[in-house]
Amino acid sequence: MASEGSIVLTPIGFVKTEAASNGVKDKDRTSQIIIKRELTEALEGISGFSHLFVLFWLNEIASEERETLKVHPRGRKDMPLLGVFATRTKLRPNPIGLTLVELVKAEGNVLTVRGLDAFNNTPVLDVKPFDFWDAPKKAKVPEWWRKLEREKTHKL
Amino acid sequence: MASEGSIVLTPIGFVKTEAASNGVKDKDRTSQIIIKRELTEALEGISGFSHLFVLFWLNEIASEERETLKVHPRGRKDMPLLGVFATRTKLRPNPIGLTLVELVKAEGNVLTVRGLDAFNNTPVLDVKPFDFWDAPKKAKVPEWWRKLEREKTHKL
Repeated sequence: MASEGSIVLTPIGFVKTEAASNGVKDKDRTSQIIIKRELTEALEGISGFSHLFVLFWLNEIASEERETLKVHPRGRKDMPLLGVFATRTKLRPNPIGLTLVELVKAEGNVLTVRGLDAFNNTPVLDVKPFDFWDAPKKAKVPEWWRKLEREKTHKL
Repeated sequence: MASEGSIVLTPIGFVKTEAASNGVKDKDRTSQIIIKRELTEALEGISGFSHLFVLFWLNEIASEERETLKVHPRGRKDMPLLGVFATRTKLRPNPIGLTLVELVKAEGNVLTVRGLDAFNNTPVLDVKPFDFWDAPKKAKVPEWWRKLEREKTHKL
């Protein structure tokens, strides 16, 4: 039963990927978004865009995990303990994933995308075209974030 | 009653703005996000970021409007008729708004932000720090989109 003030969503489709576990974090990997057949028309014109935001439901997060208020980024104890809204952790009150992907191909009700870090069968909530207004000319991030970025870049 | 496979969210807070109607589209205007008091801790460290993504619930959209599959961008008949997923229309199966904002100030449970195009009392679903991975180096958008962008830029 949905309580008062709650918001109910229905997936528009699902992720299909052969990547397992952390393999989904490989930014070069392609995966597919299978949109429900009855929504196929809603994709018309999407191939004019090179990049999309994908909103998806992190269905592996248990309801008690949604009560987490603070985390160490990527579970690393050498990182500061931070509020979940200051990180991209999956442990959040509303575990919605947000990832910018490259649109490789749109065919029928299937979007082939590059860089979607979502597991196989993840419910997709929305797909939005990327707009230049979504990108700040100059953005500031904290030092702990830059450290993680440097490490990630070196691993690539 | 939430049906099988549906997803239930609860707002983490609400938007507070003095702007009415289209006034919220003024990118220079500041508004506030009042986070629920019990989630205040989840904001710790957020002021290290200059930009945030705000996910919010477009609660003015009626349930039958969520069945819209195609629209003319901004309701303009001189624009092509396109699938809702190829536009940023509010008329979508899951009407979640996504806006990149500048974080002006974080104080207690209140975030003061610039550029949030959401009405007063809009339920907020999530707040995520902006990451450089969210910005493509080069993005392609369709001609109709560029036309609207040019018009918007000239109006500023």
